[in-house]
Amino acid sequence: MEPSVVQPKEINRPVNLNKLGSRIFPGSTPKEDQNLLLAAAYVSDAQYNRNVPFETSPRAIRLYYFYNHWTMQVAIYFFICVDLSLALFEEPALFPLPFLATSLAEVLCLTAFFGRLVHFAKVTPQMVFWKDTKNICIMVTIVLTLIDLIIYGSLEAVNVHSVRWSRALRPVFLINFPESRQIRRTFRSIRNTLPDILYVFLLFMFSVLIFSLMALKLFGDRGLKTVEGLPYFTNILDIVFELYVLVTTANSPDVMMPAYNFNWWYCLYFITYTIINTYIFMSVFLAVVYNNYRKHLKNEIRKLAYLKRHKMIEAFNILKVKVGTEFVVTEAQWRRLAKVVAPHISGPHLELLLRISDEGQKGHVDKVNFLRLADLLNIQVVTINIRRHPLEDWMPRVYRSSASLLVQRMVQHRIFVWVYDVIILINAIFIALDERNPFISYAEWLFLSLYIIEILLKLYTYEPRAYFGRRQFWNWFDTLIIIAALVATVANTTIQSARKYNSQQILDIVLILRILRLLRIIVSIQRFRVIVTTLINIGPTILTFGGLVLVVYYVFAIIGMEAFHGKVRFSDPNFTSPDALVCGNPALKDSAFARDRYCKNNFNDLASSFIVLMELTVVNHLLLLAGGFALVTHQAAKLYFIGFHIVVVILIVNIFIAFILEAFFVAYSLEKSEVETAIEKKIQELGVGIQEEEMQDGKLVDNVDAKDSGFSGDDGDNKRKDLKGLYFRIASKKYRTVDALLQQMFESEIAPEEEGPSLDEILNFSPGDLYPKNPNFENSA
Amino acid sequence: MEPSVVQPKEINRPVNLNKLGSRIFPGSTPKEDQNLLLAAAYVSDAQYNRNVPFETSPRAIRLYYFYNHWTMQVAIYFFICVDLSLALFEEPALFPLPFLATSLAEVLCLTAFFGRLVHFAKVTPQMVFWKDTKNICIMVTIVLTLIDLIIYGSLEAVNVHSVRWSRALRPVFLINFPESRQIRRTFRSIRNTLPDILYVFLLFMFSVLIFSLMALKLFGDRGLKTVEGLPYFTNILDIVFELYVLVTTANSPDVMMPAYNFNWWYCLYFITYTIINTYIFMSVFLAVVYNNYRKHLKNEIRKLAYLKRHKMIEAFNILKVKVGTEFVVTEAQWRRLAKVVAPHISGPHLELLLRISDEGQKGHVDKVNFLRLADLLNIQVVTINIRRHPLEDWMPRVYRSSASLLVQRMVQHRIFVWVYDVIILINAIFIALDERNPFISYAEWLFLSLYIIEILLKLYTYEPRAYFGRRQFWNWFDTLIIIAALVATVANTTIQSARKYNSQQILDIVLILRILRLLRIIVSIQRFRVIVTTLINIGPTILTFGGLVLVVYYVFAIIGMEAFHGKVRFSDPNFTSPDALVCGNPALKDSAFARDRYCKNNFNDLASSFIVLMELTVVNHLLLLAGGFALVTHQAAKLYFIGFHIVVVILIVNIFIAFILEAFFVAYSLEKSEVETAIEKKIQELGVGIQEEEMQDGKLVDNVDAKDSGFSGDDGDNKRKDLKGLYFRIASKKYRTVDALLQQMFESEIAPEEEGPSLDEILNFSPGDLYPKNPNFENSA
Repeated sequence: MEPSVVQPKEINRPVNLNKLGSRIFPGSTPKEDQNLLLAAAYVSDAQYNRNVPFETSPRAIRLYYFYNHWTMQVAIYFFICVDLSLALFEEPALFPLPFLATSLAEVLCLTAFFGRLVHFAKVTPQMVFWKDTKNICIMVTIVLTLIDLIIYGSLEAVNVHSVRWSRALRPVFLINFPESRQIRRTFRSIRNTLPDILYVFLLFMFSVLIFSLMALKLFGDRGLKTVEGLPYFTNILDIVFELYVLVTTANSPDVMMPAYNFNWWYCLYFITYTIINTYIFMSVFLAVVYNNYRKHLKNEIRKLAYLKRHKMIEAFNILKVKVGTEFVVTEAQWRRLAKVVAPHISGPHLELLLRISDEGQKGHVDKVNFLRLADLLNIQVVTINIRRHPLEDWMPRVYRSSASLLVQRMVQHRIFVWVYDVIILINAIFIALDERNPFISYAEWLFLSLYIIEILLKLYTYEPRAYFGRRQFWNWFDTLIIIAALVATVANTTIQSARKYNSQQILDIVLILRILRLLRIIVSIQRFRVIVTTLINIGPTILTFGGLVLVVYYVFAIIGMEAFHGKVRFSDPNFTSPDALVCGNPALKDSAFARDRYCKNNFNDLASSFIVLMELTVVNHLLLLAGGFALVTHQAAKLYFIGFHIVVVILIVNIFIAFILEAFFVAYSLEKSEVETAIEKKIQELGVGIQEEEMQDGKLVDNVDAKDSGFSGDDGDNKRKDLKGLYFRIASKKYRTVDALLQQMFESEIAPEEEGPSLDEILNFSPGDLYPKNPNFENSA
Repeated sequence: MEPSVVQPKEINRPVNLNKLGSRIFPGSTPKEDQNLLLAAAYVSDAQYNRNVPFETSPRAIRLYYFYNHWTMQVAIYFFICVDLSLALFEEPALFPLPFLATSLAEVLCLTAFFGRLVHFAKVTPQMVFWKDTKNICIMVTIVLTLIDLIIYGSLEAVNVHSVRWSRALRPVFLINFPESRQIRRTFRSIRNTLPDILYVFLLFMFSVLIFSLMALKLFGDRGLKTVEGLPYFTNILDIVFELYVLVTTANSPDVMMPAYNFNWWYCLYFITYTIINTYIFMSVFLAVVYNNYRKHLKNEIRKLAYLKRHKMIEAFNILKVKVGTEFVVTEAQWRRLAKVVAPHISGPHLELLLRISDEGQKGHVDKVNFLRLADLLNIQVVTINIRRHPLEDWMPRVYRSSASLLVQRMVQHRIFVWVYDVIILINAIFIALDERNPFISYAEWLFLSLYIIEILLKLYTYEPRAYFGRRQFWNWFDTLIIIAALVATVANTTIQSARKYNSQQILDIVLILRILRLLRIIVSIQRFRVIVTTLINIGPTILTFGGLVLVVYYVFAIIGMEAFHGKVRFSDPNFTSPDALVCGNPALKDSAFARDRYCKNNFNDLASSFIVLMELTVVNHLLLLAGGFALVTHQAAKLYFIGFHIVVVILIVNIFIAFILEAFFVAYSLEKSEVETAIEKKIQELGVGIQEEEMQDGKLVDNVDAKDSGFSGDDGDNKRKDLKGLYFRIASKKYRTVDALLQQMFESEIAPEEEGPSLDEILNFSPGDLYPKNPNFENSA
């Protein structure tokens, strides 16, 4: 143990061991400190669902704290971002940089990744480290990238151009660092779904083949022509491609028209095909993906819940002392632990948690209550400091005058909201009208001032710190939009009067801000608010999907850039030169691709590639895009587009839909978890609660006053001595994630005294153990 | 009571009261007969889930039997078909008929519907009849149709052309007759979903409007042009339409290209729009529809289960007699009841059911077992008559010779299947090759003979009646395809040699049959067979969707024909005349509609309208079609296309997907129901069972032989005296419907002795009573 650890330092300031300052509580021995740190590491892992085994030597624990410090995590994400965005600067580049610069940056990133890996190797047991495929993946990728860099660099030096293939491997870093748990979980979910989906896919391809054969025989010899005058359905490979695209609906009904024009009855063939392959098979894909998603989600959640339990038991076993017949954690130890785990927690909040954990105020926390600690820390309790309005302190006479009270009552009235709803509607009509009319452009100033007056009035009525509370999403939204609009409008007017010229960018921003203001109307309608809240709620997990899509897009974009870059060029928005009309490639002469002016859909840089891939995800014109690129390169180019469709649409989009379905179902059966209810009960018991609805209806001040007057009331005044002047509120239950909900549901099924399976068993859970447990009416129908 | 009822007639023949022949059992009194008939009506209603209250007077019961007779049901469906297909013969007609003919046919149909309604009024209590909206609907529709016919007829007589608006009401008959329970249920499910979906839809439209406003402001003043040279995003209504279409992905990325070509950054607007409106909102629609579908499905199933229970208790109360301390139904009564309810049931089957119902052979059936009767009758037990191969009877020496046995063993061998799989694959390659090569066309004859030889060999080896069992889907499939191919090929060859000319239709059929043969390969792969069986399993309910889609299509087709007929004309497949190039309408000159040769997509007759609506369902080119029709009529025509999209894609397609999802989930958690297990246990106990797997592996004969030898064995010979020489098998559990499964799951949750709620309560069940009962981890995750 290092000597600095035992030096006692500050006592009164909150203990923050994350900063490695190793401040120690008075009267504790080094051994006790050590134990406390270890237990705190376990609790912290449980709290954040971290799943990394670490060594328990003092040095390893200290390194582990450092490893989990937020600066380290931000740093590693920074390097991942730099590494991924290098593609913007490498040939084919959006902003070209010399090879030396990008390769230096890449080596720097690789060094950072390697350093992170070495750090990780120091905190985790050797065996575990080398068994973990994540670490092997990262190391192999680092080595491969270095080899590629060297080969490419040396060939470049002798002016031979080769392929930077290792760039497609870069997303490996994003996936495999332990911080990207969510993305990895989605990948695991996809991997687990693959065997099931493979058979459906084979059957689907078999069906496409059978139909292709039929089409070849039925239409091949008829001498039919497509609209472009090309032969219709004469080559089996073309037919398979066209029919595959028909599944995506991208070429319906064009692909049918020649046959349909020839003979009325042939449309039956296409209708049969569409019903079987587009509707039934695509639904079956969704069903298989969704079913697997649920199955594996349950398994993962179960694993997480047991791991959390396991870690909390470890922590308890370190800190426990025997009191009477049972093992408990003393209040003093509990306080120290909480301070180490959550150094920024406020005193009253800690006091509240202790009251909940030590129900009978016996001076110690028993095992069942101790195990809840990680959950308790995760529940965001908003500590509301009830203060009087600053104006009331500053000039009480004026603020409490009857005129002022009238204004306040007016602002709190429902009609005030309605009046502003009407103003927003009128504003919407004005926006829709032509703004070149000077009257209307003056009206904009009027509306802007009305909105500013609204905010000022509200700030006059409500306590500003409550108005801008952490969860007051719509207040923040309003104010930011208005201030931004004000700043942008003023800036624009200044520029306009100074230089007689409108800045297009600023005007665009002003317009968008002006229209975003209209969103406010949603808040006024209860049913809309519910839907929007659910959507905001699932927002964070949608970002996980963003990560997943980024990885897939990145790989496909790199491949696409290598294969297609420079083949199609966009030159001039007015399409005057003959070269611009064929997208700079004579092969595209008279093609639908050039005729529809798709030249900007190319793979000439990373941003363009991403946009093309986005268009492909929306599926339409898969044919047009694939056809265009097949013309300028080779027919095999179509495989790239079909491959992308299979990966993104059949797998990822279906998983996305499955996720949204699941999120809505969980939201429908949403109930408060046990732990949360316990906190709320305690808050109510102590008489320091505020109902959420009261907050939302803008009646905050009223209620606070009412409660404040009852505060010096009858019972249990000593109970509240630490909490006086403070109010608590469970942070909106609406903002909880699906994962958290599911985990709580599952935890409520584990008996409190249950130890759970061993660590090895937990890590090897398979969905089969769990599902179908007991198919009954409730869960199957 | 009519005198004919009490006349005893034949005794030995199975009783068939459905034919109103009113044959009475010997020794029963008229009162007993009456009771038996009433009880049988209840049991029959329970068996077929009929939900019609009927009067219990003898005459009403007799009429009720007549009402439920299959001939009456077929007749009513026939008239519905005639009524719906009248649209094919009315202007604008596919096959024109004079107005007099179609109106006479319509009046005839209306008379039939009215007669059916009067018949129904006779069997059902007055109060119930007049409270039922179904009946009111039918009456109102009949009256409206008559009024419309008279007005149209009189105007036509004075040569004024008016609109036959009542034709859009015709699907009312299809929906509202009690036989269309399934379609009505789906409609109810849609109606129940509407309030929930309405709010999401409003929010979605709000989002589209906000984005439209933004688009107007961002792009409207740029002076951008579309590919067709039209102004881009200058009119708010056009923008709303374009953006709505973008949700369907039909105009992506075309709608984005002008802005994207102008400035790189504007694509962010479209990407944001697509993510929010296409992906998130469309998934939310699916989630809302699916959630409601599940909720209401559960409620309906619960209602059905309780109604069934209710009816069976009524039947029991009629027939019960007191034996000892409990009420029971005597064996004699039970037999008579079963004979009346299911007159075509075989003697051994009835005996088997009695053994199951009267477990202890006490000579009577107790209440719990009696309540199961409807379910027992619903389970299809295949009675297999084990017979020797006819050839064995005919020439035993030859059939049992060693050469013959070798052939039989060869056919039963696994390699035989593999050899034919290889033959099919080679066949597939030959089909893909050019058939004008004479060698290949001879090869077709070879393959055909190989397949015929296969079937003959199998018929030689297996007992023919077992081979063509009721559930041997693939054997039937094989044989029918081969025979049809043989007949068609011979017919074609005959025509060809006689008239030196190929019949195109026959050739097409031969081709399709030839390719369908390849489907056989699926059977050989276990995993494929499972998926296909699930698909076949949900087939019947997909037909219900067919009915639903038919109703919606019909209404839209009638409206579309009134609004658009004759506006677009398809004249000549070679597009030579200038009129044909603009689809017979100068307004379409230079339009994308005419350029892509969409002229045949018109509303000039019912069939064409249906095909256009089918194309709209597949969504792509919604814009092109809507745009074309807007050009030839009025911009408001676009509303028709958007309305269709909302109804069909947002509601019906989502319900279809929800249905397939649910079907697959139920199939995944498939378990045998209690009742079925009871029958199987009994079958096994009696030693007369055959395992399904044995049937499928083609080892039928082997096993039967083995069991046959053990048949004259040791125990309980008297037990089997009625069953000797017969084998039973539960008809494949794989072929059960989702509904049946769900109902059984729910029934297993009702306690056997529970009486259930009262009839009124049952009919007023709402999903809220049931859901969410107890959200727990199992059903939510």
